Amino acid sequence: MYEELKQAVYEANLALPKNNLVTLTWGNVSGVDRENGVMVIKPSGVSYEEMKPEDMVTVRLSDGEAFDSHYKPSSDTPTHLVLYRNFPEIGGVCHTHSRWATIFSQMGSGIPPYGTTHADYFYGEIPCTKEMKSAEIKDNYEANTGELIVRTFEKLKYSEIPAVLVSSHGPFTWGNSPEKAVENAIVLEEVAFMAWHTQIGTGMQISAPLTTKANVIFKGNDKKTTLLDKHFLRKHGKNAYYGQK
Amino acid sequence: MYEELKQAVYEANLALPKNNLVTLTWGNVSGVDRENGVMVIKPSGVSYEEMKPEDMVTVRLSDGEAFDSHYKPSSDTPTHLVLYRNFPEIGGVCHTHSRWATIFSQMGSGIPPYGTTHADYFYGEIPCTKEMKSAEIKDNYEANTGELIVRTFEKLKYSEIPAVLVSSHGPFTWGNSPEKAVENAIVLEEVAFMAWHTQIGTGMQISAPLTTKANVIFKGNDKKTTLLDKHFLRKHGKNAYYGQK
Amino acid sequence: MYEELKQAVYEANLALPKNNLVTLTWGNVSGVDRENGVMVIKPSGVSYEEMKPEDMVTVRLSDGEAFDSHYKPSSDTPTHLVLYRNFPEIGGVCHTHSRWATIFSQMGSGIPPYGTTHADYFYGEIPCTKEMKSAEIKDNYEANTGELIVRTFEKLKYSEIPAVLVSSHGPFTWGNSPEKAVENAIVLEEVAFMAWHTQIGTGMQISAPLTTKANVIFKGNDKKTTLLDKHFLRKHGKNAYYGQK
Amino acid sequence: MYEELKQAVYEANLALPKNNLVTLTWGNVSGVDRENGVMVIKPSGVSYEEMKPEDMVTVRLSDGEAFDSHYKPSSDTPTHLVLYRNFPEIGGVCHTHSRWATIFSQMGSGIPPYGTTHADYFYGEIPCTKEMKSAEIKDNYEANTGELIVRTFEKLKYSEIPAVLVSSHGPFTWGNSPEKAVENAIVLEEVAFMAWHTQIGTGMQISAPLTTKANVIFKGNDKKTTLLDKHFLRKHGKNAYYGQK
Repeated sequence: MYEELKQAVYEANLALPKNNLVTLTWGNVSGVDRENGVMVIKPSGVSYEEMKPEDMVTVRLSDGEAFDSHYKPSSDTPTHLVLYRNFPEIGGVCHTHSRWATIFSQMGSGIPPYGTTHADYFYGEIPCTKEMKSAEIKDNYEANTGELIVRTFEKLKYSEIPAVLVSSHGPFTWGNSPEKAVENAIVLEEVAFMAWHTQIGTGMQISAPLTTKANVIFKGNDKKTTLLDKHFLRKHGKNAYYGQK
Repeated sequence: MYEELKQAVYEANLALPKNNLVTLTWGNVSGVDRENGVMVIKPSGVSYEEMKPEDMVTVRLSDGEAFDSHYKPSSDTPTHLVLYRNFPEIGGVCHTHSRWATIFSQMGSGIPPYGTTHADYFYGEIPCTKEMKSAEIKDNYEANTGELIVRTFEKLKYSEIPAVLVSSHGPFTWGNSPEKAVENAIVLEEVAFMAWHTQIGTGMQISAPLTTKANVIFKGNDKKTTLLDKHFLRKHGKNAYYGQK
Repeated sequence: MYEELKQAVYEANLALPKNNLVTLTWGNVSGVDRENGVMVIKPSGVSYEEMKPEDMVTVRLSDGEAFDSHYKPSSDTPTHLVLYRNFPEIGGVCHTHSRWATIFSQMGSGIPPYGTTHADYFYGEIPCTKEMKSAEIKDNYEANTGELIVRTFEKLKYSEIPAVLVSSHGPFTWGNSPEKAVENAIVLEEVAFMAWHTQIGTGMQISAPLTTKANVIFKGNDKKTTLLDKHFLRKHGKNAYYGQK
Repeated sequence: MYEELKQAVYEANLALPKNNLVTLTWGNVSGVDRENGVMVIKPSGVSYEEMKPEDMVTVRLSDGEAFDSHYKPSSDTPTHLVLYRNFPEIGGVCHTHSRWATIFSQMGSGIPPYGTTHADYFYGEIPCTKEMKSAEIKDNYEANTGELIVRTFEKLKYSEIPAVLVSSHGPFTWGNSPEKAVENAIVLEEVAFMAWHTQIGTGMQISAPLTTKANVIFKGNDKKTTLLDKHFLRKHGKNAYYGQK
């Protein structure tokens, strides 16, 4: 079932390493079939070289349950689901840790439109979310990441600015298909690269010191709830849920 | 007709991705046959992998009409035409959004000659144009881009400095053939890369703040006329004219 | 003997150039067989293209003697041995001069966790060692490098932060296998790249001037004992011991 | 004649594009046969893809005359000759405009030894020459470049620091063979890359403003004698002598 969508999602995922947007397995693309209420997404922790179209995982939009696959879906699945539910016109979502977009995420800064390359694809500044709160990180972290993105677009049109930077994390992009979501990720990376050098070249560094943020992720008051714990432990802790069993 | 020129223009366009000067389809090269009064240029929005020599579009120098092709010519065609009309000795024009030259465009800064690599090809500073005015952006945007370049060379020799940076946009280069225009684009990119790092390495950042410019492209008073609107809407708006129908 | 371990170490070494972590022969990976008390490591100064699985050199963990090979082991062998002896749970060690991690080594600065990419692999700041003292450089330099790393982890868990930056030198990483040690080297390089640009982009340069350090490595009081002498002379001096005879 | 040397010089030149040290034809390697008093060098302006071992040009060390070839030797030939005459133990010379070494040339700054990667190959700071004087540029420019390098090494040992940065120009390296000269060029580029980022990352920018130098190369008092004129005109002027006829 859903062979065509699986093929499209498979090809969109392969476009990530081809366009130098991912290291190891750090990126995933999904596509949606709104008529049947399902999303198809990359399996968690499987390498791009090994995976096949039929390995893509089908997930119900309504309750997030995976079915029709021997693999677990990407650990970012709940974020994708929230985006499909709240952005009714999109057909594909892409998440990577691509270098330059992630650098802006780590700076906690949006990407202003400095030139026509940006304007050709994004109708204004690409926003960076606020930092997540400890409570949001502690439970339902991935779904809360999606909710944070949705709140960031309260006064913006997701169809005009099809990208966001999650603070201290990395970018999500979307489009009317999985392929288009990846195209927007390619352009985002290019635009981020040029914006960073435009800013440094004109002496316009982000003035807010990183110290505060570094503390948040490194040794917050309630250490158990910080992003550092969340990400390290969901991969390496006792109850790790990243990757296949 | 014009098979030889189409072949030369085709090969010059293929040299763009080969030399890492373009992302997606963001670049176009043209060539001219002055005897017959025609220009040959890349079709709009067609990928470099798919296109064939016979897909190159022939345009009359006199009135800018395309003929002899099922494709629309590059949306930058009017800029190329203005350059051929005003720079009578050139045989090829190249436009890209190559990373480092575009960064200087976004900084609104020319590239001073810091070394012999620059001096081997460009006889002085590679100039950056002024910002375009709202009226120039609103109507005949692409032709006005060409006029702006021509005005920038009023006191410079286009044969000695075969490159320009269009402010907030990107570079145009030219030469006595399409191939030579691309060679100058390759060198421009190399020279821009080294100039940026020479400046940063010596603590010589462009002191004028970007804020003003960022405002111009982001949220000017008459929003409809800004560069941001122009570029986003000519690709995504109701009357989009970028790419094929 | 040890064919399986030699094959694993061979493949892990080949992964270094494949992932752009080394220039020329500047990197080596080892693996350990704790049951038999032996370590297998890349031969010194042999190129990755030429070497074969059977060229990997077997060394006794107890006394560091190489056997079962016509090649000399990597000149960094004593550092690897100290790590295996002090970090009882690791199965592989990797050393490179990869560009971005080495830049942090040269800055004498650790890499703070600025984002989830870091947190996915390293549970806190990746530390940079102190500068080595002249006496430590003069005799048993490579073993002392290992001891310095071990001291750096006195209050840290080597299993949670599987990487270190040796000041003025470069990175060492480890893991439960040679392959995993290389994976951590890949991630370290990525994390270092993004941390450097995050810091510069937020105006957070390391404030301690390099002058002092530059003096140490360049023209210390007792020139014979400086790092500069050690490294230049162990390769080019009368008693050079780098590479094969 | 000199087939073996021509083959070695040919292969060393091919190693330049293979190691990303050159753009277009901007680099040349030579080798010497001291017994017979001849130097073999790359032909001027010929692409690396097209040239064959027998195209390498033989030049007499005594008077610099080319013979035994239908091609003109590299326009940098007089610089190579001066180096062979003054550095009696070297067997190969390499000149490129490799990006990072050239950036230091353009900054007018030497490369201090910040780490062991540097110390493995260069026994101290890699020096940058002084600016050339107008008279030195006007006549015998290429030979004077060689003399400038030799003066720069008056108090340094060329065997211990086999590289130099010519101010506002680019690097020259040498070694006991053409192959070794290229190896030193590879390492120089790596070391320059890491030194630049080490300096910027620690807030240690070169404080001397570029303005003065930019003036020298751009619009000196006696314009005819500046570097800008020399390099542009030797390639594009009436009496151009770069490349083949």
